[in-house]
Order: sequence, then structure tokens, then C-alpha cells
Amino acid sequence: MTDVPYANRLVAEMSLESKVAQLGTVRIGSLLEDGRFSPDRARDVIPCGIGRVTRVGRESGLAPSELAAVVADLQSYLRSETPHGIPAFVREESLCGYAGRRGATVPQAIGIASSWDPTLAREVANAVGEQLRAIGSQLTLSPVADLGVEPRWGRIEETLGEDPALAAALTQGVVSGLLDAGVEPTLKHFVGHGRPVGGRNRARPTTSLREMRDADLRPFRAGLDAGASSVMAAYNTVDGTPCHANRRLLTDLLREEWEFEGTVVSDGRGIELLATEYGVAPDRRAAGVLALSAGVDVELPETECFGDRLVAAVADGDVDESLVDRAVRRHLGQKARAGLFTDGSPDPETASAAFGTDAMRSLARRAARRSQVLLENDGILPLSADSAVAVVGPSADEPRNLLGNYSYAGAENADGDIDVVTPREALSERLGTVEHARGCGIRAGPTDDVDEAVELASDVDAVVACVGGRSGIDVERNSSGTAGEGLDRAELGLPGRQAELIRRVASTGTPVVVVLVSGRPLAVPETVDRANATLLAWLPGQQGGPAVADVLLGADPGGRLPVSLPRTAGQLPVHYRQPPVSRGEYVFTPETPLFPFGHGESYARFSYGTPAVPESAPTDGTLTASVAVENVADRRGAEVVQLYARHRGGRTVRPVRELVGFRRVDLAAGKRVEVDFELRTGALAACGAEDRSVVDPGRVDLEVARSAGDCRGRESVDLVGDPYCPDTRPAVADTTVRSASSSR
Amino acid sequence: MTDVPYANRLVAEMSLESKVAQLGTVRIGSLLEDGRFSPDRARDVIPCGIGRVTRVGRESGLAPSELAAVVADLQSYLRSETPHGIPAFVREESLCGYAGRRGATVPQAIGIASSWDPTLAREVANAVGEQLRAIGSQLTLSPVADLGVEPRWGRIEETLGEDPALAAALTQGVVSGLLDAGVEPTLKHFVGHGRPVGGRNRARPTTSLREMRDADLRPFRAGLDAGASSVMAAYNTVDGTPCHANRRLLTDLLREEWEFEGTVVSDGRGIELLATEYGVAPDRRAAGVLALSAGVDVELPETECFGDRLVAAVADGDVDESLVDRAVRRHLGQKARAGLFTDGSPDPETASAAFGTDAMRSLARRAARRSQVLLENDGILPLSADSAVAVVGPSADEPRNLLGNYSYAGAENADGDIDVVTPREALSERLGTVEHARGCGIRAGPTDDVDEAVELASDVDAVVACVGGRSGIDVERNSSGTAGEGLDRAELGLPGRQAELIRRVASTGTPVVVVLVSGRPLAVPETVDRANATLLAWLPGQQGGPAVADVLLGADPGGRLPVSLPRTAGQLPVHYRQPPVSRGEYVFTPETPLFPFGHGESYARFSYGTPAVPESAPTDGTLTASVAVENVADRRGAEVVQLYARHRGGRTVRPVRELVGFRRVDLAAGKRVEVDFELRTGALAACGAEDRSVVDPGRVDLEVARSAGDCRGRESVDLVGDPYCPDTRPAVADTTVRSASSSR
Repeated sequence: MTDVPYANRLVAEMSLESKVAQLGTVRIGSLLEDGRFSPDRARDVIPCGIGRVTRVGRESGLAPSELAAVVADLQSYLRSETPHGIPAFVREESLCGYAGRRGATVPQAIGIASSWDPTLAREVANAVGEQLRAIGSQLTLSPVADLGVEPRWGRIEETLGEDPALAAALTQGVVSGLLDAGVEPTLKHFVGHGRPVGGRNRARPTTSLREMRDADLRPFRAGLDAGASSVMAAYNTVDGTPCHANRRLLTDLLREEWEFEGTVVSDGRGIELLATEYGVAPDRRAAGVLALSAGVDVELPETECFGDRLVAAVADGDVDESLVDRAVRRHLGQKARAGLFTDGSPDPETASAAFGTDAMRSLARRAARRSQVLLENDGILPLSADSAVAVVGPSADEPRNLLGNYSYAGAENADGDIDVVTPREALSERLGTVEHARGCGIRAGPTDDVDEAVELASDVDAVVACVGGRSGIDVERNSSGTAGEGLDRAELGLPGRQAELIRRVASTGTPVVVVLVSGRPLAVPETVDRANATLLAWLPGQQGGPAVADVLLGADPGGRLPVSLPRTAGQLPVHYRQPPVSRGEYVFTPETPLFPFGHGESYARFSYGTPAVPESAPTDGTLTASVAVENVADRRGAEVVQLYARHRGGRTVRPVRELVGFRRVDLAAGKRVEVDFELRTGALAACGAEDRSVVDPGRVDLEVARSAGDCRGRESVDLVGDPYCPDTRPAVADTTVRSASSSR
Repeated sequence: MTDVPYANRLVAEMSLESKVAQLGTVRIGSLLEDGRFSPDRARDVIPCGIGRVTRVGRESGLAPSELAAVVADLQSYLRSETPHGIPAFVREESLCGYAGRRGATVPQAIGIASSWDPTLAREVANAVGEQLRAIGSQLTLSPVADLGVEPRWGRIEETLGEDPALAAALTQGVVSGLLDAGVEPTLKHFVGHGRPVGGRNRARPTTSLREMRDADLRPFRAGLDAGASSVMAAYNTVDGTPCHANRRLLTDLLREEWEFEGTVVSDGRGIELLATEYGVAPDRRAAGVLALSAGVDVELPETECFGDRLVAAVADGDVDESLVDRAVRRHLGQKARAGLFTDGSPDPETASAAFGTDAMRSLARRAARRSQVLLENDGILPLSADSAVAVVGPSADEPRNLLGNYSYAGAENADGDIDVVTPREALSERLGTVEHARGCGIRAGPTDDVDEAVELASDVDAVVACVGGRSGIDVERNSSGTAGEGLDRAELGLPGRQAELIRRVASTGTPVVVVLVSGRPLAVPETVDRANATLLAWLPGQQGGPAVADVLLGADPGGRLPVSLPRTAGQLPVHYRQPPVSRGEYVFTPETPLFPFGHGESYARFSYGTPAVPESAPTDGTLTASVAVENVADRRGAEVVQLYARHRGGRTVRPVRELVGFRRVDLAAGKRVEVDFELRTGALAACGAEDRSVVDPGRVDLEVARSAGDCRGRESVDLVGDPYCPDTRPAVADTTVRSASSSR
């Protein structure tokens, strides 16, 4: 038997070196020679085995079948040649698809979030998981469960949006989809990475652990409830202590209060920073001891604060070996539960079959279509099929600009070419020839030629201008990247000459459709004003072009904003879920966002009935709110019905509104449905000064709305009974859709 | 005897109505008839007496002698005609001078802070206190002890800057100066008002109570240690609970931990907001009970959540009468300690003598001179006395623009005219005729005439451009005001056409000296780039013009920045005292401020020796750091020598630097001194997750610096011994200046 008890018993038999090896990670590169697994190098690098092997697709550069062979050989070596024959977790990134060769790129996470569709999130994650499994990877470093409340932060594109309930529901979808494929998700970054002070990557969050209980912690808890067994510690501090050294967070809360039994992994250099940056440990060895004691179980490669240093620290009596045993037990237990001791190795013969499929392309296109948010439309959209169209802008025909951070070598096809269809290509296919001029780059550059784009614009019926940012990684700071990890911004306008491009093209009088290709919520009020329609495509992935073309030509845009779009960086934070501010207006600038959370236009139109709610409900029960929704347009369309709550009369000040339920409905012309939201009142809990989530009796305003800024009906419910402390706060209401006769 | 025990005994004899009356406040207006105290109205409005009477100068509109007569009659009525003959605290605002007719206006608080001179702060507060006492006021609603870390916030001008140590030292100065004059200061706003989320007035602070222990709480504690007996609760929430309902803050911390025995007063409508805005009480009566229970003792006028409602709540058993007694005991005790039971009434005959004096004008001018910060100077300053100068800009000759928020009717002279000398007037007096054109208003308007200013500029040796903002109150939101209470901004550039004015004037080629007249730190990198010199005058008060002229013509500018000046609102927060951020750079914008905290040029130049520090010091002792400073210029000048510390190796992540000492030295040409900083190590304490301030052993880097961005020498000290929990964290090091022989 190779179950969890077996794994636990194993610990007693292992040498200290073998145990510490299980807490380490190596990059695949250190085990390869000429693109194949090298047993000699392995004997040298991981003689006692290893906990995890990482960057397998990204760093090996190998095609799926080759990589599957490497992984099979690696696991075979570990099983047969290391002391206890323990297989490694083989690990990759998969934020917007498997980040290795031929990996599909689906829309970046914030686009998936815009679908407001946990089922779609699950489907996409499952498809990505199948690719991971095909190359032998059983663990991935996604989803990002951080709340995306800070648009200056370069990684906001990796998040599932600003709202705890929406992000929790979607996190559950991603987690379930990966688990269904046999891949362990990693919830990251625990906790607070998504609201760094000043939007500066790795800065401390703008809030305390107490406040995070009502917000940032919820997607993590939801992901764990859905079965995730891996959590990554965040770089930042929480309440003055770095997460990697935060026993209150990693042990008191995660282990004792939440009863988490999986593993906590460090972020890259996260342990080392305790010494080098934060000054809470004198050196790397002490940093390793501090992190292990606080509750970090597994180290990422690069800094080796565990490894030999930890062996020495135990030998010198600086740390009790029982702490090493605890971490090893957790890791081996996780490996056992994930089936590593029993599952077969990947099959190099069949590995390729999961890649480059029509099914995957079709899913990527559908997901991208669902993720696009039509911000406004004066009627120019949908374009008619016989329009003469010019496509301009730096993202009109640049495949790389459609992809998210962490896509790396993904989106390559079998020939090593990038398998991405651009908006220009897709529109050409649909409309016949379209005129095209780049106009300018994302950043200003010597090849900018705005004049050329303006000339084109004068001769067509409509201009489609694809502008935005480019998601890169830190190394692109000084060249092409304007967003992504390590690419934070202080201001949120269109970079380079893009705003000028829009202004000049619009001044020709030709109608302009702006397609924002950006994983960061930009602040572009003037650009939106000048455009006849603005479509936010996010980073739509390999089928982004066809999906954009679908929507421009009539497919109902499916997305709703998972973040509030600011007018200017100076009005941050602008996320909707905030407590009331009396006298909170600015002198010259509205304090409202340019477009609110939840916003998105449809080509159809919907009318809402008066919501029905009970007069009262118990603090520890459920309540059902119902509303009729009708498609009053003469075409099919999708609506996302949103339910917000405001709780009054409790001991703690609550946000003016909080999302507690949502339901996507796809309605034929004239179709009318009744949507029931069955809300467990535990979802209304809040954490007050006592550091405990409580549902206080009081009065709850329930709003049925099209967005956080567009309420269509408000009713109140009295919550009665004693204060109630729910064990888990449910993410959102369960929903049912019933057919109803049309009002017409 | 009418001492504190007497006051306490009195409570037992008082009726509930009389007691509740002592917790209330009325405006002076309700007691006046034809500008005189009306006993009939008093019998109607305050039959049982009253705790406090407010807005005496501002609302009565009376000259000092008239007002003194009113106050004398009021107190006489209370002594003779109310049940227990208890006098009222007569109260005014005095943020930048007594806020009534003929009150001098000294520089707004942030200007006083720029002096880095607690002795000057004390002197100014004392002079203001003498005016308050002359009209019979024994209590004032200043100083603002909030940290000014948020330039979008309209009230930042009211603060003593961003740094806890500097603000604590200056708060002590102001408190001592007022107490010396017999006036009780009120420390406000307890706590966190100065760092509202988004810079939106009354929004919650961007931090938790734990973090505020190391920062925001320190000026309050310093003010209490200096003898302040009054604290005003803040509008905002702390950790989810409004301060007015925050027992943890007002009782556990303030009363039990800090042993405060004075009174806590509400802010205007602060109790009512518990019901109307925050939703933690169902109505005003319940809000009153909640506030009283949490620890609010005295209510401001307007909402009457105490008053009859509190009487009824006690009668109905909703709140125990002992809580009323507790508050009354505190208030009567405060009145006894302030001498209200024994002190005579104001003397109408002599009241005027404290107003409009040459001594006051001279102090106002000196303070204004000390508060000006020379941001940069290419050598154009000082201007030579025979320069042909044009003065332009909206604040060149507009007296109101030189005054701070809460100056109201202050700065009137005996004839009712405003007693303010503008830069144009002062420069004319010093230079003979100067050309003048307004150019434009603070906001764009129909009378803007930038061309006129540009024309003038072409014909002179130098242009002095006085630009900035206008400090108003909420009602000026839509007209003239751009800063002050309720006038928050999302962006921080010069409003209206002022930036254009500078650009066009500069493009004539004539050298431009920009004088920023603004209580808000503006983000004006382009304006500074175009100017040959930039002087930040803040809101310099009634003698602002002469003070500006003094500095432009050669008086050494005395000020150093008490706040960091941002490049753009998008990089906020930019205050210097922050923990390290690894990878914290923005893509397009430097993360550093435009000018750092502590910065300010002198007309002289200074050189620094190598600092001398001990090798080690005990965690619970003192350490002395010394540095030689020499004026190496050929003219006299003032330097502010700054000492910063970084503590490493403790349990909590600490800021990269923290001010722990400073000393202003005024040195003749060639003069060299040795400055000793005697630092109690308690000043190095930090509050970790345990919610307790601790000095951990570790290593302390000490920097001698000209600003937070200009270090002149760094040495390290080992802190040794056990962790030490100081009772009070000292504000700053004691300093001694010793004469030293010149190095030349």
C-alpha cells in the first residue's frame, strides 16, 4: 500500500538528508543532457530524491512527447535509484494555458473572470489540466486567488477580479477543473499580494488580516473547500510579518483554524527575502529555519535556504527535526493523495494527442468570446458583413500582444510557429480584404507611423483600433512590456502614441471601434469618449482574433467587468466593495469609476421585474430572492443577473454593497425567466474587531442589478435571531432559472 | 474649594438633566441677541447649564472687546442662574491663529511643521493662546495630530507633516504653548483621519491600529504626555469600527493603557453618522448610547444624539446612568484642572490689547519665513535689490489665497479690513515699483489673461509667479476652493491655467521664480523643471507677503519638507517611512518622490563629518550619535541636521528609514559645530503582531542626512540585551550643539 498512512510511516525510516530533499525543488534543466533525462546528472543533483521538479515545459523547450519521455525517465530513476523510491511532483505554470511548447493559450485569468461563469472556468482549467497530465505534470502553480483590486499592479491580469465572491466561485471552478484532470492546483499568493501599497509588486497589502477575512481570504478558503492541497506563500508582509515567516497566517489560521492538510510552498526567493530584504533573519539559513517554523513546507529552487543549510541547522540544534518531519509528512501525504505512488508515468506515445486539437481551439475561442466586455456602443456594433473596415493599432496583428503573462513558449504549433490568430487575420477571413496599418507600437518608437493609419481611416466605413498594453515579464521592463509580473505602472493611460492614434483616427470622422487588448484595467476616459464603441478584449489568447471578430460581427459579447475601470490612477482605490464614505467627493473628478464592476453591454436588451424577498430570515438560515428577467430585444442575448447585499445594524461597518449572487442567462428574443437566488445567510458574515466572522441580526438591503452601478430593484429583509458564526462563508447564492411566460 | 474632588462630588448632587447638559455644546449664536449675551435666550436654551459653548469668534462676528463682554456675561449667568453654577468651556478653532475677528493668522500648520522647530511651534501657539484667553476662551480645537501622508486629502495642510517623530515633537510644542497661555488644546482626530483611503475625507485609514501604534498614535501620545486633556474622535473607522463607537480605541487603549483622564469630544455629526452613514446603530438615540458607552464624553452641537435623547435613554434603562456620571466626572474634572471654577472672566477693557500688535505681526512674519522651503535654485535667488521684477499669478496679490483653512474671519484688522500683506505689496515695498499681472485664477475663469502676464515677463529681469491652490471649506467645492476640509482631489497638478501660465512665461526666456502658495503638496514636475527656482511658501498667513519677499531677497529659507512631494498622484503613497519593497519600480515613472521628506535648500552650503556612534547599546538604554557640521559658504545659513534609523533583526519588518532626531543649527560663514543626538532606544520600538511595542535586539543603521533622500553618513550600532517594552516611545533624540573649531 502506498497511501497516506504509508507516507507517514515512511518518514520514520528516512535519513535527514532524504527528508530535506523532499522539501526541495529543482529545475528540469539541471537534470537534462541534450534534451533527455540524464541519470548521471540526477545522481549528482538529486541523489536522495527530490520533492518537486519545475519549469519542465518552459525550461526544457521540449515538445510534449519528448517531455513525457523525460518525465517518465525521471520518475523511473526516482523510483528505482533513490533511497525510498519516492516520485517527484512534476510542476509547471498554467495561468493561461500550459506554459510549454504547444500549450494552448486560453484567455488570461482576468478574461476568464469576465465570463462570470464558474462552469466555463472549470471547463477551461480541465482542458489545460489534460495537457499538463499528458506531459506527466501533476501539480501546477495556478490559480491566482489574489483579489485584483489594484490596476497599477502588473499582475492584476492574473487574478479573477476584484470581488471576493466572484473570485471565490471562479477559483472553485478552476480548482475543480484541474483536480478532475488529476492535477493539483496551487492557490497563490497567500495572502494579500493583489492589493500592494502603491501597486508596487511585493509591497505590503493595503489592509490587515482582519479585513482580509471578509475579502482576500475567501477565494483561498473556497479553493481549499473545493479540494486544493497546495498553497503558495506571498512575498508581502501581513500585519508587519512577511508571509513566509508568518506563523499566525500559515499555522494558526491555515492549519489550526482551517484544518488544512496539504503543503505550503514558498514563492521564488521568498524565504531568502526574510534575510536580504525584510531584515527579520540574519542570513539564509536562519531564514530557512524561520520559514519552516512558521509553516512553509516546500522551497522553490534558486536560493536553497532549506537544503544543506537546513540539514546543518538541524544537526546544530537550531531547529527541531520534528519540524522537518512535519513538512515531509505533509508533502508525502499530498503525493499519496495525488496518486504519485500508484499512478503510471506519462506515455510519450500518446502525449501529443492532447495538443493542437480542434476541440482545444474551439474552447479557447468560446472562452475568449465570453470574456469580452462591450463597454459602450452607440449602435455601430455589430458591424455589417459588407463593411469596408480598416484595422489599426499595435495589437491588430501582433500575436504576442494577445497573450498573457506566464504564457512563455505556449501557443507554439507543431512546427514551432506561434499558433495565434490575430484580429486582422480573423477579420480578413470574415470580411475579405481589410486594410491594415499598425500606426504605432505599444510604446513610442521610431517605426511609429500614425499618418499611415489616419490615411487608411479616411477611406473606410469603420476603423477597428486595437490598442492597449503588452504583457511581459520583468526583463521586458525597459523594452516592450507594460504589464505582467514586475511591470507595475504609476499611471494608467494608453502608453506611447496610442491615445494620439485614436484621437487622430477619430478626427477623420470615420466611426472608430476601439478594441482594448490589455490585461490591466486602463484609465482611458478620453479614448472611450472618442470611440463609437469600445470593446475590452483583455488578453484573449490564441483564438483572440476570431473571438474579437465574432463579437464585432454580431456574437453577443459575453463579458461583464470583474474589476472597476478607473478614470485616473489618482482616484484609486476605485473597487466597488468599500464601506460608506461621508463627504467622499473629489473637487474636480467624479469619485465613481468610469465603468463599474459588473458592467457590460449586450446586443440584446433586458428588463427586470420587481424582486421578491421574504420579510425576514434567520441569521443562521437561508433566504430566497427572486426576480423576473426578460429579453425585450428582437435578438438572442446573454445577461448576467447580479445580486448585491448591504447589511446594516451589525457591530461592524459593512461595504455599501457586496456581491452575494449572480447568474448568467442566455435568452432568446422575447424570452422571460425567473431567477431564484437561494442565499445561505452565512454569506453575509463579517469579521469585526473580535477577529471572528459573524452574521449579526439587522436589516439587509438586497439589490438586483446589472452592475454595481446599475441597480434594477431593491428590497429589504430583516435578519432575526442570535448572532451566528458560520464555519465557512459560502461564496455565492445557489441559483435556479425557471421559465416564465413573457410579459408581452 | 472648587478642585477636582469637588467636581467629582458635585456629580452626586446633580439631576440627570444637569449632568447631560454638561455633556453638550451650544453655538454662541443661540445665546445672542443684537450682539450681546441674552439671559432670556440662555434661560430657554441652557436652563441647566451647558458643557461647552462654541464658534464664539467665528459665529458672533464680534470684535475681541465685545466678545469678552459676552463671555463674561455668559459665565456670570451660568455661575448665578444655573443649578450648580458650573462655568462652560468657551471654545474656538485656532489652527492658524484665533479664528475670529482680528485674530492673527500665522502660517497654516504644515508651514509651521516645515520649520522643524518645536520651540517656534510653541511660541506661535502661545501667542495664539493669549488671544484666545483674551476673549475668554479656555479650550481650542487644535492641534491636528493626524499624520499628513495623503496629499489628495484636502486637510493635509492642517497637519504637522507625514512623520510620526516630527509631528510628535511639534505637537508637544503646540500643546505646551497653548497650555502656557491657559488654553486647553484638543488633539484631533483620534485616529487615522490623515490617511484616508483614496484621499477621500472621512474614509477609513489605509492601515490598522497595530500599524498606527508605530506612527499615527505617536503624536497623540506625545501631546498627552505634554499635558493635553482633550481628544476629538475621528470620523473614520479603525479596524471596521467607527472611532465614535470604538471602545477598543477610546477605552481600552486611551483610558486603560494610556491612563488618560481628560475628555473625548465628538467631531461634528460624528455620533449621528453611526446611524445615518455607518449603519451600526438604528437611530440617533442608539448612536448616542453607543458613543457614550465606547468612551465619547462630550458632544458637538448640531445633532443632539446626547441631550434629551440621552436623558430618555437613561430613563428607559437603555444605558446605565453610571456611564453618564463617568463622562460628567471627566468633564468637570477637566474644568477644575483648567481653573474654570476659580479663574476670573475675561476683561472687556483689556481684551483688544492682545490683537493687532507689532509683536504678533513680527512673530507671524518670522514663522512664515521659517516655514518656506526652497525646493531648488539655479542661482537666480536671492534676487538682487535692483532687479526689475514682475509678479504674476493668482496668488501674487490675493490676500485670501495666503490663508489656511479655519482662518474664517481671522486676519481682519480693527476696521474690518483684512490685515494681510501680499507678495506683490511686500515686493513693491522692498524693490519700489514692481509690475503685476494676475494672468489667471486658481481655477480657469473668464477673467484669465495669460497674455498680459507673458507680455510683462518679456520686459523684466525676473518673474515671480505665485501659483497654487486656494484653501477653503466644503461650501467652496464648486467655486473657488481647491483644498481644505471637504476639498479633496484625485489629481495633484496646478488647477486651471496655472501650468500654462508658467510654461508661457518661461518660454519668454526671462528667468522665472515659482512661488507655490499651497497647503497641499502638489505634483508639479514640469513646472519645477521650467522654473529657475521654486519656493514652496505653503499658506504663509497674514505676513506671508513680507516673508516671501524676505526669502526672495536673501533671508535664508528656513523650511524643510515635512512631507514628500510626489511626481504624480498615481505613485501614492510616496511618504518616506515605508518598509522595504523588493521589485517596487514602476515601468515609466520613478518610484521616488520629486522632492524627499526633509529636503530644503539653503543659500549657504554645509559639509558633514563622519558620524560617531557607539559599537553597541542596550535595548533599554540610550546611545549618542555625533556629527560635525560646517557652514562652508561665505554667508550665514540654517541647516536642519537629520538622524534616521533602520532597525534590522527584530521580529517585525521595519521601515527602510525612520526619523529619530533632528536639530536646526544657524551657522555663521565658516562656523563648525558638533551635534550630539542622545537617543533613548525606546524610540526604536515597533509594534508587532503581538500588539505591543518592543525594542528587539538587532542591528541599527544610523544615517546622518540632509533629507530622507540625501544621506551624508551611515554607521551601525548593535542593540544588545533582552527585548524591551518602553512605556512611552520618545518622540526624538535630545540634542546638544557644541562649538567646534573649523576644519579650514
